[in-house]
Formats: sequence, C-alpha cells, structure tokens
Amino acid sequence: MEITKLSKSELTKLYKEQIELLDEYKSRKLKLDMSRGKPAAEQLDLTNDMLTHCLDGDHISETGVDCRNYGVLDGIYEAKRLFMPMIGVGRYEIIIGGNSSLQLMYDTIARAMLLGVKGSPKPWCKCDKVKWLCPAPGYDRHFAICEAFGMEMITVPMLEDGPDMDMIERLVSEDEDIKGIWCVPRFANPTGVVYSDEVIKRFANLSPKAPDFRIYWDDAYCVHGFEDERTEILNILEECKKTGKQDMPLIFASTSKISFPGGGIAAVGASEENIEFMKDQMSFQIIGYDKLNQLRHAKFFKDFNGIMEHMKKHRAIIKPKFELVLGTLERELKPLNVGTWSNPRGGYFVSYNGINGTAKRIVELCRDTGVTLTSAGAAFPYGIDPNDSNIRIAPTYPSLDELKTAIEIFCVAAKVAACEKLLGE
Amino acid sequence: MEITKLSKSELTKLYKEQIELLDEYKSRKLKLDMSRGKPAAEQLDLTNDMLTHCLDGDHISETGVDCRNYGVLDGIYEAKRLFMPMIGVGRYEIIIGGNSSLQLMYDTIARAMLLGVKGSPKPWCKCDKVKWLCPAPGYDRHFAICEAFGMEMITVPMLEDGPDMDMIERLVSEDEDIKGIWCVPRFANPTGVVYSDEVIKRFANLSPKAPDFRIYWDDAYCVHGFEDERTEILNILEECKKTGKQDMPLIFASTSKISFPGGGIAAVGASEENIEFMKDQMSFQIIGYDKLNQLRHAKFFKDFNGIMEHMKKHRAIIKPKFELVLGTLERELKPLNVGTWSNPRGGYFVSYNGINGTAKRIVELCRDTGVTLTSAGAAFPYGIDPNDSNIRIAPTYPSLDELKTAIEIFCVAAKVAACEKLLGE
Repeated sequence: MEITKLSKSELTKLYKEQIELLDEYKSRKLKLDMSRGKPAAEQLDLTNDMLTHCLDGDHISETGVDCRNYGVLDGIYEAKRLFMPMIGVGRYEIIIGGNSSLQLMYDTIARAMLLGVKGSPKPWCKCDKVKWLCPAPGYDRHFAICEAFGMEMITVPMLEDGPDMDMIERLVSEDEDIKGIWCVPRFANPTGVVYSDEVIKRFANLSPKAPDFRIYWDDAYCVHGFEDERTEILNILEECKKTGKQDMPLIFASTSKISFPGGGIAAVGASEENIEFMKDQMSFQIIGYDKLNQLRHAKFFKDFNGIMEHMKKHRAIIKPKFELVLGTLERELKPLNVGTWSNPRGGYFVSYNGINGTAKRIVELCRDTGVTLTSAGAAFPYGIDPNDSNIRIAPTYPSLDELKTAIEIFCVAAKVAACEKLLGE
Repeated sequence: MEITKLSKSELTKLYKEQIELLDEYKSRKLKLDMSRGKPAAEQLDLTNDMLTHCLDGDHISETGVDCRNYGVLDGIYEAKRLFMPMIGVGRYEIIIGGNSSLQLMYDTIARAMLLGVKGSPKPWCKCDKVKWLCPAPGYDRHFAICEAFGMEMITVPMLEDGPDMDMIERLVSEDEDIKGIWCVPRFANPTGVVYSDEVIKRFANLSPKAPDFRIYWDDAYCVHGFEDERTEILNILEECKKTGKQDMPLIFASTSKISFPGGGIAAVGASEENIEFMKDQMSFQIIGYDKLNQLRHAKFFKDFNGIMEHMKKHRAIIKPKFELVLGTLERELKPLNVGTWSNPRGGYFVSYNGINGTAKRIVELCRDTGVTLTSAGAAFPYGIDPNDSNIRIAPTYPSLDELKTAIEIFCVAAKVAACEKLLGE
C-alpha cells in the first residue's frame, strides 16, 4: 500500500519497525561507501598487465617519437586513434591530455577566463558577469568549477531525453552573459539520461547571443553501457558542422573508468580550428602530457574495438551491482511508493528521488548507520536541491555483499525518513 | 691575437677561411640540434626498468592507497619522500603533481590570476596591471607564461652570484603591481649561476609592497651538478621562516631530467599554509595526479639517496659533453677573444655572449649549416636581447660525435659573424 495512504497508527508501526532495523544495522558498526562513481578493485585488476608488460623495451611511437622524452603536445597518434571513434572526431580534432578529463575541462575554462576562447571579444574574466547553464540533477564537480570561478549558475531542469531545450534556446538567445553549458549526453551523471537525437539537433541549432558560447560535452560514459550493443547518440561535432557552428562543442572523455581512474588518459575533441587555438594556448602551460602512459594504453587496447571488448569485462562486474540496487529498491520501496528512481542503461549511478524534504535526512540516517552517500543536493548548483529530494547512488565501488547491505540500509532509511515526514506534517 | 686587433686584410682573410669551412660543413647536409635542454636517449635508458618491473602486481602505497584508483590530491607519501630532501621541505610542505613542473608553475600563476594567492586583496586578473621581475638571461618558458597572461616583464640583470638584488629590493618595495619573480637558483638556465648565500638571505628579507608577492623558485637542476658533492644552496623556505615570510617562496622541481622528460613527476614545495591554500584551490581542477607513476618512481629510486646515486650515471654521460663544448670554445674562440661564455658546474646549458650584434647572425649561420640553436634573444623577456649577444647552447641531446661537429660549426659561425660585424663597421 502506498505510504501516503497509511493511517497514522500504520505509519507509526512502520516507523518503529524500520527504526529497530536501523538500530540493528548500526550495532554492526559497518563502513560502506556508495558516495562516488569509483570502480571497484576487481575492475582495475582487468588492466593490471598494462603496468608491467606493455612497454618492454619499446617506447617509440608508430611515428618514431621517443615517448620518454619531451614533446608532442597533442599526444601520440596511436592514443588519438583509441579516442577518435570513442568521441567521434578525426585526427586533427583531438588532443590527448593527462590522467584527468576534469583537469582538461577545468583548464579549458580557466584559459577561457584568462585568455578567451576562439572568437571571444575579451577574456571572460574581463566580463562583468559570466553565467552558465547547469542541467540538474548533474555532476557536482562540473558545478564546483563554475562556483570556483564565481560564475552565476542557472539551473535547467533535466527531462527524460535531455535538458529542457525550450529553456536553453530561449536563455542563450537572450543573454550574452551565458558562456557555456555542462552536458553529460550519455548515461548522464546521475540521472542516466541519454540525449535524444532531437535534443542534440537542437543543441547544434542553438543561436547564442554570446559569440563565444561553448557546449561542454562531457561524454564520460561513452562506452559504459550495460548492453552488448553500444548506445549510440548523434555526433554533436558533426551535427554542429551541418549548422556551421562547429566551434560550439568541446567534447571530453577519459579512460578513467576503462583502465585506471588514477592513471588513465583523457582527451578533448573539437573542431580543427578550436584544437589549433587550444594548442597555441596550451603550449605555454606544458611541453607535453605523459606519452609513456599514452603508449601503454595504445599497446594494451590496440584499437577502439579492443576497448569495446574490454568494456564487456567491466560490464560483467558492474551490471549485477546495478541489478541488485534496482531490485532492492523495487522490492523494498515500490510497494510503499517511497520515491522514484532512474533505471539506467549505462553509466555509474542510480538517481533516487525521495518524498520531498527527505533527501538530507536519508543521507544522515545512512551516515549514522555506517553508509556513506553523496551529500543530498550535491547534484544541484550550489549544492541546493530545491525539493530536498534527490540522492545519487553509486553502486560500483562496494563488493556485491557490501552493496547488498548498503542498499538495504538505504531503503530502511528512506522509509524512516518518509514516515518522519508524514508523521510530522 | 684578439679579433678586434686584426687589420682589415687579416680580418678579410679570416672571414674567407671560415666561410669556406662553413660551406664545406653545409655540403654535408647535417641535422644537428643544440636547441633545447633535452636529455639524450642514452640517459633515458638509465630508467627503462621503471617501465616494466616496478609495479609487478603491487600498486598499493605504503599507507594502503590503491594507486590505480581516484584520490590523494597531494600525492602519495613515498613520492613526497623522494622530493622532500631534494627541495628542502617537510611532508606537509609539498604537493606531488603530474609529469610537468612547468604545468605546476603555470597552474599556480593561473590560479593566482583567477582566484588570488593566500593573502591576495583580489585575484590578479582584477588588478589594473601585473608586473613581474625577470632575471635575464633566463628561461624562455618562464617569460612566455608572463607574456601569455599579459604581465609587464621587468628585466633584472643576472650577476655572478644571482640577480641584481639592489634592483630587486628597490623595485618590490616601491611598486605594488610587482607580484612575482622567476628564479632558477641552482645552475640557472642558461647562465649556470648558483645563487650565493647572501643573495638568498636578501630574498628572504624582501619587503614587497604587494602583500601577495611570490618568489617562483624553480630548482629545476637541484641534483644536476657535475661534481660528486652536491652543490648546496641556502634553503629559501627555511630562510623565509626566519624572517617570518614563509609564504613568499614557491619551490618547483621535477624528475624530468632524472627519469623521463615526458613521463616523470613534478612537485611544488611551500609553507604548510600555502600548501593547504593551494590544495583547496586545486581540488576543483583534479581529483589526483597519476599516483601509479609516483609509485613507479618511489619504487625505482627508493629514496633521495637513490636519486643522488642515479645522478652519477647521468653525470657520466653529460659531463664529457660539456667538456667537449667548453674545450672547443676555449680552443677556437679564446685566442681571438670572440665572445665569452659560462663555465657551469651543473645544469643543462652553456651561456655564450658573443660580440654585440652578432647573436642572431650566429644562429642564422648555424641554421643554414644544419645546426639548430635556441633563437637568439630567447633568454630575455619578449625574446629581445638588447645587445643581440646571448646564445644558449644545450649540449646534452646530441651524441658526442654529433656534438663535436655542432660546436665546431658554432665556433666557425661565431668567427664569421664577428668578422662581418667588424668589417661592416
């Protein structure tokens, strides 16, 4: 029976039962973590060979570059070749970075602030105001970059097939202070949303008032689907070429969740002109990223097909964890109708929407029972969820056993918080 | 006999002889490079084992961190331990970065521009003007960062034991727009100068008008002496602690010329308060640098003593190259007194000062004969050497055989340019 339809005494009974359960869990002094989208050690083991047998006496790239020495700002070709089909760009439309796509994104925006992007009338730090569109729920670290740079974030609702394009079209065409938007087009963090063809076409057709508006297209989960067939989305760069707006999108990806989160390689894709412009700016910062790690990855995966094959192994580890989480939510919360949640076909998260006003309390109850969750509100600009409803669940890091307990505790906490809310009203 | 004392006919004769020599070299269609401070492949071979046998099934740090996964923004302890004695800081006074100390320097200044340093009244990009002190001859990439950010560079003459401290003391105490200075305190690029104790004490006693003035202390060659005994300099951070100005210095170093220029690790050292401040700012940019590469280095070198032992092997390769260059200059140019040059006790460069107005011509003559040199003027702010006299010679990259030819060609070119200059006057 739906929880909102329970009588006060039924609610009180449910509440007491669940509180007792929580106390029992509490006594077990657990330490479980569903807070970050972190691969489990078992997943990292899949690429251990990369650390030992990849560079045996061979550190020369296909084009004859000694990867141990200085140089090659945009990365070696065999590393580009891994990423080109992954993010849908050509060989002159890509730069291979260091171990972090977040760093590439931050740096790209820092340069825009200090120096401007191609076509900027002036560096953004010389503008009175810089505004940014933030589809939410979204990725907390994206929003944190905006906050660090003092940008004004404008929340855009996330719909079933992408962000609210009506709102985006209207805002960017009216307000020249709006310089960018964050997008995770495939298995979005945390909603799992995959942008529809229509949404992507509408992005390519945007007519921003700011001549230096950019779409920050973080395709972090581009090969992280749960199905055997790759989940394809429209190629944003190609769509933008059709509309003559190829300088708008900047595409980011990394192998953080393919090889090693701490020791992978990242890439940025964009129009040839954007890439040339960026390389000129970047040449003041670094002579070249770690080409040995690029070579290590190229030798291990060989080509994009090698990556797709490798992702099957990740999938075999990850999928049962998502099934466990979704199955438990379905079993424990669905009958009472305590919240709703995403049913992602890829990525690293389940997005839970509890009864309004319960998210913080659920996180608190979980924390007190030894389960760490991402802070409530983290998926919103400034960390403020207006409904206090959304929680991002990250099932990958714990073992299946740990996860079973953690998500059961989550469900109990969700019920407790819901009872408290309803009883208090 | 000194070239300035030759008669016109003697000069003409010398000129013709040397031009003929150049033509002969030219016919050999050489391709030699003395332009950048790049280790030779033979040096890189010294650490090849790091690429294969260092991480055999073991990627856990001493403190239990899985170096393959996310986290640990400031780096793993065993990597810090390598650098701490190298740059003279404690464990809470250091951050281990990626593969590039240039990137750490650029990023440190980019953050200062966008966000300010500890104690900044406002971000530097909000200042009307930012000025920077540039001891010259100095490192071209340092100056390029200033230029990229539109700073006004003020040239400070480089003396025998460091930059002109009288000038520095006066300028920083008078002008609050001066926010920083570049220093390479040991075996300076390109002069080879080692800062004296007095100079370093005077740095620690600076009283800058800007409350957020910083000393960018690039100790790039801190273990790169040519002698068995390490060339010690006063510890800038400790000296600044004595004067209560411990937030002034930011110390940079890397293993680029210890392990691999393309795949080493870099570090920044500073006061504990500075480090905490920087970590807070950096946390928006990156979750953590490549800890696997940090672990690789820690396992290979074990400790600072391991690095010092390793540097003996580099020295055995490098020292003969410097001896060859210096011996050839001595033999070919000294008798005629065509220019003067540094006699470095470490580092990667010989700094040559030709007769005024000949540097560009020497570089051009060398280029036409197949020898690449750093552009004349590169060691000065805005690439302008007021005397057109200084050339940076980088002897490490070519083999001894190649270097012999390259430096002989350099000497011939220097003589030709001198003759042209004197005949033209």
